[in-house]
Amino acid sequence: MTLPNTFELDARDGEARTGRLTTPHGVVRTPAFMPVGTAGAMKGLHWREVRDAGTDIVLGNTYHLMLRPGAERIAALGGLQRFTGWNGPMLTDSGGFQVMSLAQLRKLGEGGVTFRSHIDGSSHELSPERSIEIQRLLGSDIAMQLDECVRLPAERGDIERAMQLSLRWGERSRRAFETAAEGTMLFGIAQGGDVPELRRASARGMVETGFHGYAIGGLAVGEPQAVMLAMIEEVAPLLPADRPRYLMGVGTPQDILEAVKRGIDMFDCVMPTRNGRHGMAFTRLGPVNLANARHADDPRPLDEQSAWPATRSYARAYLHHLVKSGETLGAMLLSEINIAYYQHLMAGIRDAIAQGSFEQFWEQTRAGWAQGDITPR
Amino acid sequence: MTLPNTFELDARDGEARTGRLTTPHGVVRTPAFMPVGTAGAMKGLHWREVRDAGTDIVLGNTYHLMLRPGAERIAALGGLQRFTGWNGPMLTDSGGFQVMSLAQLRKLGEGGVTFRSHIDGSSHELSPERSIEIQRLLGSDIAMQLDECVRLPAERGDIERAMQLSLRWGERSRRAFETAAEGTMLFGIAQGGDVPELRRASARGMVETGFHGYAIGGLAVGEPQAVMLAMIEEVAPLLPADRPRYLMGVGTPQDILEAVKRGIDMFDCVMPTRNGRHGMAFTRLGPVNLANARHADDPRPLDEQSAWPATRSYARAYLHHLVKSGETLGAMLLSEINIAYYQHLMAGIRDAIAQGSFEQFWEQTRAGWAQGDITPR
Repeated sequence: MTLPNTFELDARDGEARTGRLTTPHGVVRTPAFMPVGTAGAMKGLHWREVRDAGTDIVLGNTYHLMLRPGAERIAALGGLQRFTGWNGPMLTDSGGFQVMSLAQLRKLGEGGVTFRSHIDGSSHELSPERSIEIQRLLGSDIAMQLDECVRLPAERGDIERAMQLSLRWGERSRRAFETAAEGTMLFGIAQGGDVPELRRASARGMVETGFHGYAIGGLAVGEPQAVMLAMIEEVAPLLPADRPRYLMGVGTPQDILEAVKRGIDMFDCVMPTRNGRHGMAFTRLGPVNLANARHADDPRPLDEQSAWPATRSYARAYLHHLVKSGETLGAMLLSEINIAYYQHLMAGIRDAIAQGSFEQFWEQTRAGWAQGDITPR
Repeated sequence: MTLPNTFELDARDGEARTGRLTTPHGVVRTPAFMPVGTAGAMKGLHWREVRDAGTDIVLGNTYHLMLRPGAERIAALGGLQRFTGWNGPMLTDSGGFQVMSLAQLRKLGEGGVTFRSHIDGSSHELSPERSIEIQRLLGSDIAMQLDECVRLPAERGDIERAMQLSLRWGERSRRAFETAAEGTMLFGIAQGGDVPELRRASARGMVETGFHGYAIGGLAVGEPQAVMLAMIEEVAPLLPADRPRYLMGVGTPQDILEAVKRGIDMFDCVMPTRNGRHGMAFTRLGPVNLANARHADDPRPLDEQSAWPATRSYARAYLHHLVKSGETLGAMLLSEINIAYYQHLMAGIRDAIAQGSFEQFWEQTRAGWAQGDITPR
């Protein structure tokens, strides 16, 4: 049975696409970048700043939320949107990725995965069905199937086993999702590591099962960018053109620009906030390390051409001082500045595709990054 | 020579007073609470939030700023207001208090104090003259004289020696301040520990030297509230009625209310932000510990009657979750909520004095605190 489709493509330019995905909590303009609000909060930002920066949709981590404060509790409090005050679209992951990276004493089998919480050592189980149930309790607009993600490099045998398991879990997830609330969506996830043949098999199997949208998982896990892009090129042509495509956990502005060029519509990454907390700003002229002493006496803003107030108003000297002093405001400002830059990039991408000038935008944007930061003075 | 006076008293009610102090960067409504932006930043808040919460003036710490980023550097960058983006009145302390509490290898003599930085061990000297120079470089609207503050309990001999030294340093500070920018102010500081006779001697000596305003220092350093209030009652009547009076480092909402009743006009304290970072909210019904499990399932806001959006909108369950998860947003929201509560209290105090109903306000406010938080459900 074909699932309903609320994704509308507005324009294409080469393989790049722009459109709108309608969710129960609002419309998402694509290509879209989803900042990661791990445990029901965006580190260093108020929700109004996340929104003001141009964010349509955020990602919540099922693993963190199921452990604390708990899915049933969030449901009783009205769901994640009401609980957190982020009143827009929200995608939740399945929890599987964090179980494998954060939890202790993991045991993975056909049924699912058992593990101990990294917070209090308590025992938990995550199956495809329970993951869907949790995401439903959270009030997610877009749920992800449970999958197994293998870190690269890995043996082909391990990659294939995880890919096949993910396909079976995808089918179970889709069955479990049948009674989900109207308008909510379930995305399948293609695995297959860095093996083209396995990537293609995974994509075909996933499309056969049928989902509202299709994700590519297991990339940006240690492989070179060229490998990541090659895998996208294997998978994207096999996906239905009228469904949204989501590249999970990606990435740098460069990764995003290249993936859009290859037909990807959605992204998520902790990089803007995490790097912001470590003193790094993403700008039109590439990354800037505010901890560097070259900024200590520099009264100039990060980028005087930016439309984002904090980016064009605060002196580099002040940001440098905040970073060196470990002041919370430094992390707050740089996280906000980075999310604003990412969303500015996405808006530029969308406009360029709509106007049929993506190739030019791609060139100009890369030229800016290659130019590098303004000269110290 | 009498110093110019830009303080205007608008009303009195008993000993309580309300007025306006005009500084080069704007007008301060008194009684005023000054949140503490230690190292050029308010922990967990954007400056616009500090302002929106009803703050007229903030305090900057000379000790922190002279060490990092350095007074000369801030001067070259246009002064603290321009450097930080806080474009309002700013009072700076003399640096002496933090030298005694934070710095290493202190050596105090008639000339001043030498110490090593707690940041990098570098050697520094702070004299009354250098303190004034630093505060001038910072662009302070209100500078404080260097003094010696003795922690209580202490021997009378030690208290007296520090008090006399502070008087001599006050005279030197006033001389050093003679060439300061027009409109900027210098406040003297009365010491004398918990000894009424020494407090009175200190107040008389300070008034004889003559300052733009008068501070009471060395209180809220471990003594009971009753002792603090008794010392205010010794000092306040000896101060010129037409000059602003500042009780340094105070305090809880209770302390502030009682001190206003005894004629104090200005306060500063890290408590709203520090306690906020530790999960504590100040409210109309007394303090609330958001880390307590009683809030885990409570959808009610901290205070639905509050005019401050975060106080009346976020669920206690969400704030509890943020605090327990160590999310930055928890510290951000509670710091903001606390500063907003303090400023709401000050606004209530000012209105009540203006309307001649301070006694009633005092009773009602205390009754609210005594009532305690709403019942769990």
